[in-house]
Amino acid sequence: MAYELHDWPLIQGRGEFVRLALEEAGAAYVDVAREDGIDGLVAGLDAPPRPPFAPPYLRDGDLVIGQTAAILLHLGPRLGLVGESEADRIWTHQIQLTIADAVAEAHDSHHPVASALYYEEQATEAARRAADFRENRIPKFLNWFERVLSANPAGPRHLVGTRLSYADLSLFQLVEGLAYAFPQAAERALGSTPKVVALHRLVAARPRIVAYLASDRRVPFNEDGIFRRYPELDG
Amino acid sequence: MAYELHDWPLIQGRGEFVRLALEEAGAAYVDVAREDGIDGLVAGLDAPPRPPFAPPYLRDGDLVIGQTAAILLHLGPRLGLVGESEADRIWTHQIQLTIADAVAEAHDSHHPVASALYYEEQATEAARRAADFRENRIPKFLNWFERVLSANPAGPRHLVGTRLSYADLSLFQLVEGLAYAFPQAAERALGSTPKVVALHRLVAARPRIVAYLASDRRVPFNEDGIFRRYPELDG
Repeated sequence: MAYELHDWPLIQGRGEFVRLALEEAGAAYVDVAREDGIDGLVAGLDAPPRPPFAPPYLRDGDLVIGQTAAILLHLGPRLGLVGESEADRIWTHQIQLTIADAVAEAHDSHHPVASALYYEEQATEAARRAADFRENRIPKFLNWFERVLSANPAGPRHLVGTRLSYADLSLFQLVEGLAYAFPQAAERALGSTPKVVALHRLVAARPRIVAYLASDRRVPFNEDGIFRRYPELDG
Repeated sequence: MAYELHDWPLIQGRGEFVRLALEEAGAAYVDVAREDGIDGLVAGLDAPPRPPFAPPYLRDGDLVIGQTAAILLHLGPRLGLVGESEADRIWTHQIQLTIADAVAEAHDSHHPVASALYYEEQATEAARRAADFRENRIPKFLNWFERVLSANPAGPRHLVGTRLSYADLSLFQLVEGLAYAFPQAAERALGSTPKVVALHRLVAARPRIVAYLASDRRVPFNEDGIFRRYPELDG
């Protein structure tokens, strides 16, 4: 049975991290809200007995799973996108949770006051938060991924072991998002993290990822999503 | 061998969620930085091959695990604080990740611009963010936990199934923290979530939790931690 991915349809969103894993694995899935609209997406948040807090959520048979990192924890072994050992699995998950933290901070760089307000209603606060994000937080996160790659006993091509994991795909997406939203700051930070850059290139060249990125299933970045390009926030 | 918990020693911090699980289970653990200071804590962030991004982290034999939710994912089965089925485990983890999101937002209510700055340097922005947090986000999170309890087919005493899980303990701590930091707003929101209040009471009455909370291992809330009482942010 095909996986059902439920997420906001007009943006890449957090569901994009799940989509990349499904696409790389060649898994059968339905991107439900893109086909059917958001009424069902919202109704799914009210579905007992185990209602997700927010999109994205995945339906796998009877199981409904929210929280991006939990979805990938579930899918990793099923899609062959995580190592076999318990140690590799918890380490891959730990990296994913750190990517999730970076994503949340990227969102808050343009929404530091309230998700429910427009950017324009918090642009003053965003200017201060984005300055800290691009000067301190982007380098801190990317340097940590660089150290993880450097310290991998199996070599620096992948974050964990010798093979592609969902964390590699997610780091690709984080780099994509940062380079879209903060072209100057991201380029500066990536200048010090050549192994992160190499991993981004490696993922971008995977045949199924190439095909996916060229398809209309890949919604372009835009200013309704997590990663937004507001030139006044870059520098 | 005793578990080693590594976290900032002078605050409850995110490590408190781990501490509550270890205490409830009566597990042997060493709270390393409280005994040895923070030099080793910081050095541990630089320890290859799998360096945690930030405290807290847990050492279990050869395994080092960062990210609070990942630590609890690892400890849950070992401490008897999660159900046996895969469905129960991923649901418990999903709830924990949502608690982690609430905790991050509680932190950002007083630090909406930058973790590296003092509260006093971002008090203006904090006033706006805290207003949204107490009016919209606290009710949204607590109402979701109330719905999870209400929808539990096994009854509303626990978040998952019929027995205590690490998510129950973490929800107790979230409620403790919100009631400390936002006494008025938390009381107001909890007025609509009687099942959350009942679960908080149930956890607070567990014999090992009673003993722990009365011990000097429980560091009092303070204005260096995640949950801070700044009266101007409540209301």
